[in-house]
Amino acid sequence: MSDLLLFAPGTAATADAVGDVAFAQAMLDVEAAWVRAQADLGLAPAAAADTVAAAAVVGNLDLAALGADAENGANALIPLLAQLRRAVTAADAGADVGAARFVHRGLTSQDVIDTALMLLVRRSAENTLADAEAVAAHLRDLAVAHRETPMVGRTLAQHAVPYTFGLKAATWLQGVDTAVAALRDRVDRLPVQCGGASGTLAAVGTVTAGTGVTPLELAGRFAARLGLRPAAPWHTARLPLVEVADGFALLADALGKLATDVVLLSRPEIAELSEPTAPGRGGSSAMPQKRNPVLSVLIRRTALSVPQLIAQLHLAAALADDERPDGAWHTEWPALAMLLRLVPSAAASAAELTGGLVVHADRMLATLTDASPGVLSERITVVAAPLLRDAAGDAGTSPKDRVTAMLADADGPGAEATPRLRARLRDAIPADALDDAALDDLLDPTRYLGSAGELVDGVVAESAAAAQHRTSSANGSTDTPDRRPVPSGEEHP
Amino acid sequence: MSDLLLFAPGTAATADAVGDVAFAQAMLDVEAAWVRAQADLGLAPAAAADTVAAAAVVGNLDLAALGADAENGANALIPLLAQLRRAVTAADAGADVGAARFVHRGLTSQDVIDTALMLLVRRSAENTLADAEAVAAHLRDLAVAHRETPMVGRTLAQHAVPYTFGLKAATWLQGVDTAVAALRDRVDRLPVQCGGASGTLAAVGTVTAGTGVTPLELAGRFAARLGLRPAAPWHTARLPLVEVADGFALLADALGKLATDVVLLSRPEIAELSEPTAPGRGGSSAMPQKRNPVLSVLIRRTALSVPQLIAQLHLAAALADDERPDGAWHTEWPALAMLLRLVPSAAASAAELTGGLVVHADRMLATLTDASPGVLSERITVVAAPLLRDAAGDAGTSPKDRVTAMLADADGPGAEATPRLRARLRDAIPADALDDAALDDLLDPTRYLGSAGELVDGVVAESAAAAQHRTSSANGSTDTPDRRPVPSGEEHP
Amino acid sequence: MSDLLLFAPGTAATADAVGDVAFAQAMLDVEAAWVRAQADLGLAPAAAADTVAAAAVVGNLDLAALGADAENGANALIPLLAQLRRAVTAADAGADVGAARFVHRGLTSQDVIDTALMLLVRRSAENTLADAEAVAAHLRDLAVAHRETPMVGRTLAQHAVPYTFGLKAATWLQGVDTAVAALRDRVDRLPVQCGGASGTLAAVGTVTAGTGVTPLELAGRFAARLGLRPAAPWHTARLPLVEVADGFALLADALGKLATDVVLLSRPEIAELSEPTAPGRGGSSAMPQKRNPVLSVLIRRTALSVPQLIAQLHLAAALADDERPDGAWHTEWPALAMLLRLVPSAAASAAELTGGLVVHADRMLATLTDASPGVLSERITVVAAPLLRDAAGDAGTSPKDRVTAMLADADGPGAEATPRLRARLRDAIPADALDDAALDDLLDPTRYLGSAGELVDGVVAESAAAAQHRTSSANGSTDTPDRRPVPSGEEHP
Amino acid sequence: MSDLLLFAPGTAATADAVGDVAFAQAMLDVEAAWVRAQADLGLAPAAAADTVAAAAVVGNLDLAALGADAENGANALIPLLAQLRRAVTAADAGADVGAARFVHRGLTSQDVIDTALMLLVRRSAENTLADAEAVAAHLRDLAVAHRETPMVGRTLAQHAVPYTFGLKAATWLQGVDTAVAALRDRVDRLPVQCGGASGTLAAVGTVTAGTGVTPLELAGRFAARLGLRPAAPWHTARLPLVEVADGFALLADALGKLATDVVLLSRPEIAELSEPTAPGRGGSSAMPQKRNPVLSVLIRRTALSVPQLIAQLHLAAALADDERPDGAWHTEWPALAMLLRLVPSAAASAAELTGGLVVHADRMLATLTDASPGVLSERITVVAAPLLRDAAGDAGTSPKDRVTAMLADADGPGAEATPRLRARLRDAIPADALDDAALDDLLDPTRYLGSAGELVDGVVAESAAAAQHRTSSANGSTDTPDRRPVPSGEEHP
Repeated sequence: MSDLLLFAPGTAATADAVGDVAFAQAMLDVEAAWVRAQADLGLAPAAAADTVAAAAVVGNLDLAALGADAENGANALIPLLAQLRRAVTAADAGADVGAARFVHRGLTSQDVIDTALMLLVRRSAENTLADAEAVAAHLRDLAVAHRETPMVGRTLAQHAVPYTFGLKAATWLQGVDTAVAALRDRVDRLPVQCGGASGTLAAVGTVTAGTGVTPLELAGRFAARLGLRPAAPWHTARLPLVEVADGFALLADALGKLATDVVLLSRPEIAELSEPTAPGRGGSSAMPQKRNPVLSVLIRRTALSVPQLIAQLHLAAALADDERPDGAWHTEWPALAMLLRLVPSAAASAAELTGGLVVHADRMLATLTDASPGVLSERITVVAAPLLRDAAGDAGTSPKDRVTAMLADADGPGAEATPRLRARLRDAIPADALDDAALDDLLDPTRYLGSAGELVDGVVAESAAAAQHRTSSANGSTDTPDRRPVPSGEEHP
Repeated sequence: MSDLLLFAPGTAATADAVGDVAFAQAMLDVEAAWVRAQADLGLAPAAAADTVAAAAVVGNLDLAALGADAENGANALIPLLAQLRRAVTAADAGADVGAARFVHRGLTSQDVIDTALMLLVRRSAENTLADAEAVAAHLRDLAVAHRETPMVGRTLAQHAVPYTFGLKAATWLQGVDTAVAALRDRVDRLPVQCGGASGTLAAVGTVTAGTGVTPLELAGRFAARLGLRPAAPWHTARLPLVEVADGFALLADALGKLATDVVLLSRPEIAELSEPTAPGRGGSSAMPQKRNPVLSVLIRRTALSVPQLIAQLHLAAALADDERPDGAWHTEWPALAMLLRLVPSAAASAAELTGGLVVHADRMLATLTDASPGVLSERITVVAAPLLRDAAGDAGTSPKDRVTAMLADADGPGAEATPRLRARLRDAIPADALDDAALDDLLDPTRYLGSAGELVDGVVAESAAAAQHRTSSANGSTDTPDRRPVPSGEEHP
Repeated sequence: MSDLLLFAPGTAATADAVGDVAFAQAMLDVEAAWVRAQADLGLAPAAAADTVAAAAVVGNLDLAALGADAENGANALIPLLAQLRRAVTAADAGADVGAARFVHRGLTSQDVIDTALMLLVRRSAENTLADAEAVAAHLRDLAVAHRETPMVGRTLAQHAVPYTFGLKAATWLQGVDTAVAALRDRVDRLPVQCGGASGTLAAVGTVTAGTGVTPLELAGRFAARLGLRPAAPWHTARLPLVEVADGFALLADALGKLATDVVLLSRPEIAELSEPTAPGRGGSSAMPQKRNPVLSVLIRRTALSVPQLIAQLHLAAALADDERPDGAWHTEWPALAMLLRLVPSAAASAAELTGGLVVHADRMLATLTDASPGVLSERITVVAAPLLRDAAGDAGTSPKDRVTAMLADADGPGAEATPRLRARLRDAIPADALDDAALDDLLDPTRYLGSAGELVDGVVAESAAAAQHRTSSANGSTDTPDRRPVPSGEEHP
Repeated sequence: MSDLLLFAPGTAATADAVGDVAFAQAMLDVEAAWVRAQADLGLAPAAAADTVAAAAVVGNLDLAALGADAENGANALIPLLAQLRRAVTAADAGADVGAARFVHRGLTSQDVIDTALMLLVRRSAENTLADAEAVAAHLRDLAVAHRETPMVGRTLAQHAVPYTFGLKAATWLQGVDTAVAALRDRVDRLPVQCGGASGTLAAVGTVTAGTGVTPLELAGRFAARLGLRPAAPWHTARLPLVEVADGFALLADALGKLATDVVLLSRPEIAELSEPTAPGRGGSSAMPQKRNPVLSVLIRRTALSVPQLIAQLHLAAALADDERPDGAWHTEWPALAMLLRLVPSAAASAAELTGGLVVHADRMLATLTDASPGVLSERITVVAAPLLRDAAGDAGTSPKDRVTAMLADADGPGAEATPRLRARLRDAIPADALDDAALDDLLDPTRYLGSAGELVDGVVAESAAAAQHRTSSANGSTDTPDRRPVPSGEEHP
């Protein structure tokens, strides 16, 4: 029942993960985990937890009614809770363990909503990270494969100096790696929300009173059941949410840069890159010749949208007054929903894009050659000026200015200009100062790539090591409280 | 099938107007109007237009498939068109007028999408304006009813000087009136989009070639059919969209100010206003004593969200490169959809809020009295200082400083402090300079309201005149091309 | 003493107009006008107004002290007022008309700050509009001069169909004209702020008490002295400010689109446009061959920044609580200052850019020719398919598919592909259905420009008429209260 | 020469740290460090480095000319470099070591600008962190001191349940601690920018050619001289900048929440907190009774502004095309400058605010008492309902509903309502089920504080440990490359 897909093409695959069904189920999962945590500590019968878990499935809800009733309390949990209690009572009809009375007791609606959002964030983040890891792997492959592929570097949209596609891929990789590290770290620290109406756990205290269990123990068990970090209530200390959202945004930024480059370099006049093709994609009904870079366009759509969404969440944090804000909290939800629709979709598109990116190395070389010797001006001046022999008529002109004048004369496409400049320089520089081979080298744009290769090596090695480390940590962490899999029965897929 | 309602409580009533169903139907309406315009000018048989109109209903579409396929072309119209053509062909099976070949011919997907968005904008705006006019009417009533209701004015969250609730209502009214005027004006100028792939109408020219009809005439007829303004293509000149969105934003700003005030003045310590109650609204399951100002909270939610949405649309306009942008255009859709969900909902909430706002004039007066004589310091000093008689021991102290000292001594709640200050002033001022009645007047905060009444009168009169003018224009405009009702059959409700 | 110029290159010329000196002088102008208005109505001696006007010059202030002291009251007027009073007292030493006591009496700091901001806005807007009118005039010239200049239209960064540079210029013009109209209209309605501490004019009432002059008359005279619109206090009804800021933003949007196109079309691989050159501009110390499109880059800088600034102002309006907001008001100032630095600078750059833009029509034609016949696919299919003769071996293939196949075979640069396709079509179409000349026409991309010329004519005519109307109104309006020149002595340049 | 102070009150103390003088000096420091690094590795004479260091002081520059010329190259470094070279040549006049030719060689302007920005960021961050650590320390003190101070908790602006001021302080502390940790971590990883025109270090290679020193070694030495992290070029991989900016934003968010609470709780009707007073602060010339919470207002100003600034930087990162962006890079500078003005100022204000915050515990208790028994409804219902004795006339009414009815009857201020409710409950509950002491406890709002104390303990302990850890790391890190003090002579104060 996802909606707004036509307004956000490319998000169909991820929309369900942050739609109303998913949100409602996440809230139900949280309510079920709360009863289960009570049962774990002897505060409720196990049968009650079983009953609630069985009843807490979104299929039991009337979502349209939820949507309409959410206005009354300015949140969705209040009407959901009423529906859940009815479902639990119905499910309990036979066993009659009084399961309904354990539902939500001691909690406030914000506990459930915030915790449910953490579950949605985690699921989206895990999907996103899987795709982002794939992007990083593709970029490492591209960087290595094109370590020596020369192209022209561009600054302020003009040709600057020689560059390599490997270094461009490594530059993209830097961004993705930074974002992955940030997002991974923050997702691993997502906190549970558990504090009751004003965050004192006072109502939880009425649940635990006289049982030997403390409220903090119950809150801790609740967190453990959901695989979240136990935390002091953060009803109005919203930075955990902002931080993880910033992590998504960093990835969007990194992918936006990548996609912007791909769109530019796919322009027919440049034609150095092409998106991978797929049946039906990128076509135009009226213009059969067109091949639109739709993956990149949609990634850009996301990257251009995310800054505003992030601003929204920062603003909400800054305005989180009292013990529950009077509007700011409510602004987080649509912004977060859109963020969790867009960024995972962009990551998936980017995985496909980088996995199949077509690199036209021949065209890159042709453009670079064509842009010479202009793009070598910097080098030629530094090297040649000190070597010029004195020449009649040059009195008063510095060697540097003489080289600059030769370069200015050598305007035009490289195929013509380079030989012309070579002849001028050959005349002006004694062979024992610069022999023919060295002169050829000087004028060869593929010989002015600096440390591009070493830079690629460094970035790729660091990236591979970080990815390896993440994989190891993930494998080794299955028994740590913070990262363990969600207990079955508590969270529905 | 609205989604994201749980993420945006209070939008259930308006979500359908900008959901996928509505957007798809609007695109179908545009396609149908295009064939109808061809028929109007003899370029297609009327039967073809009838067939297309009959087929172009959202029920004939597979929306889930649309949502998924929209990624391929980075927009929703391409797959919708394929489905529409199949539906038209099916509908045409008996009559066989070849209706399908008139569908979309000469247009590009952007023509249809942009025009469909204008239809959504218009419908949302008309609903919004109706509610905003109601808000304005309620505020005029409140301003008039409370023209003389004193309250304390607050600046930087502190008590400042006396004020009236009537002037507060008039201040709210100013904002609403400005926004209504702006939105009304812009909605009345919404343009059709019609240009073909790059905006030259070249493909439309192949449709009209040899018919004696010009492409501009056909484009004009198309606009007329939809009740939109004929316009040069604005594929990448996005200001009409931005301007009308700014109009919605202005209303959100105005309502945000109003709602922020209501939330503040509804705080239990202040208690000068209460939201209208309604069954089930504002309650808390765990705290039966609570009465949450949920209408205002949700209006604030909207007002705090809209600035980011507007920024998104301005950014899209600034990046609208070439003849169709490579990502920026695509950022408009979700931002616009959210804007059209939120602002109409806020207008509806505001109509209810202002229509039933409870004004506790007694509490306003009590607080004002309590805040005196402090809030009269400015006045007392100006009036009393020149009247002080010389006094022993005051040598070297200016009259102004003497009054300030008296005011400082008269700290505390007004019920005690005012009499104390009165006695001091009575001692210090000869009765022939200020008689008892004048002294009482000086210390009466309800007598220091300045021109509040005249200001209310002016704002209300201007507001009423503008509303009257809008009503007259609307009634008188039914036969003008720009405002006429949408022809039946072309646009579905 | 402008600062932050190094952080905002290109704003040197406009920075002074919204720096601290200008703001301080504007506040002084407002204070002087207030005394002058009192004098006009007999509430103060003319000599006092003269004295205040003489003293109210920024040179009399210690701005560094102002900057430091502004924190104490969270605004700059409070310490400025203390300094002004000292300056007035000093100036009054000889004449001794007691001028100081007329200064600011009845006003609140917000009256002065808001009104001063209106003066800054107006001055910036007038400069901006003058440049924007020049841009519009240049664009009309470009559109007319290139009415027939063919180029390729681009959508989603790919070649689409033929286009003209004239229509592109007209598209830019649409945006600029919309923005100019909006900004002009709003600047002509800038309101004075005059209400006293809470907006009731109560303190003004103590000034006018017993004089026969009403507070509203004095406020009106004050407005007239400054050439502003008399208005009810809008201390917390911020829409006049937001609306005019939106007007600046619309212009930034329009110029951003223009500059984005210029940067793209100036890329060396495309090379269809060049920025005008100027000594020293666009160079790179290390890369003498480079010619950077710095005007466009800096315009884009502005256009990408303005959406956030506008969002800030909308947000401030929405949070304008009570009778003076507790933080939101204060967010307007830096946002507005940056807006008034950036947009006028962008307008000036755009005037220079459009006035000297170099159009490489030959390159445009070459690219269009090269992109053919692909960019004519849409047309060729529509025209040729119905004319194909039946051919052996084509049974089962539709005419449309046969043409599509021919087009697919005719891949490659136009110089080779077009003749190849021509031969295929000549074979397949009988000469009596399409003679040689018509076939040549069909394959000529400069013959598929649709209504581009008529669209240019329409946009240019409308633009010229609007500009003419604005000129007439401005000339004719010198004696209307709202637009008259600021009285000398009240506002310093 | 700071400007825009009047537009941003409260930033005078920090404005100089990110003004043009500071930026220019930071660029000079970077240029000097580059020559020093060459000298360290034997690529330049030490005397040259000395000469450059001596010449590279901002006093040698004509800043006004820089500001004007910056437009030509769209950045400030190009004209600065020309001025620096003249200054070096002049300084070199005697020694004649040819120092000028080592200046900037191999670098590009972006290397210098980005690195200089990192220096500005670091300095601002260190100041900010020092103040933020003070804020954290103050909040720990407040939390501990008020661990048992009861107040009413507020949700959606209404009274909810009892709370403590200690827990509120701890909630503020959570935010500040999260922000400090994030900012500290990111500041410690600030990277140098060193890559040359397109990031390949090719021009650096011409410097090192034949010397046995590699370009990466020189770049590394450069980083070490400035105390920055060596890094691959990030010209268009902007996440290091975005990440640290997000760190500043997190702090602004945390302080915004704090200040919003202080403003609310300082309202005269609530009066639970007061800002510390200081001579001249918070006054109003016309209203001597006023005490405005200006520290909080100005912190809120910052917190409401930062989200837009952050959005700007994320957007710039997403649009960082090619090897130097065509506008996006340029948007970073004013946004960063404003961020570095506002957040450090807010941190300083917050240190003062939290260090002197006046807590009116008596008023907190009075309000809480007054809000009872309503704010105890949740507890009373849970505890009392099971204990009710059966009563005639209550058939069919559940115990819970009976308690709810009693609570509804006990409306009104606590001083009257609580005794009334006590009597009703006493009647309804047998003394052996709930004795008098237990009943008193049940109705005592200060006895329903849940785990507030334990939560405070936990947050404070974690905060103190983290602060201790940061102090230790800082002390122990003086000899690590990344954190060592900037070498004297390279960076001017």
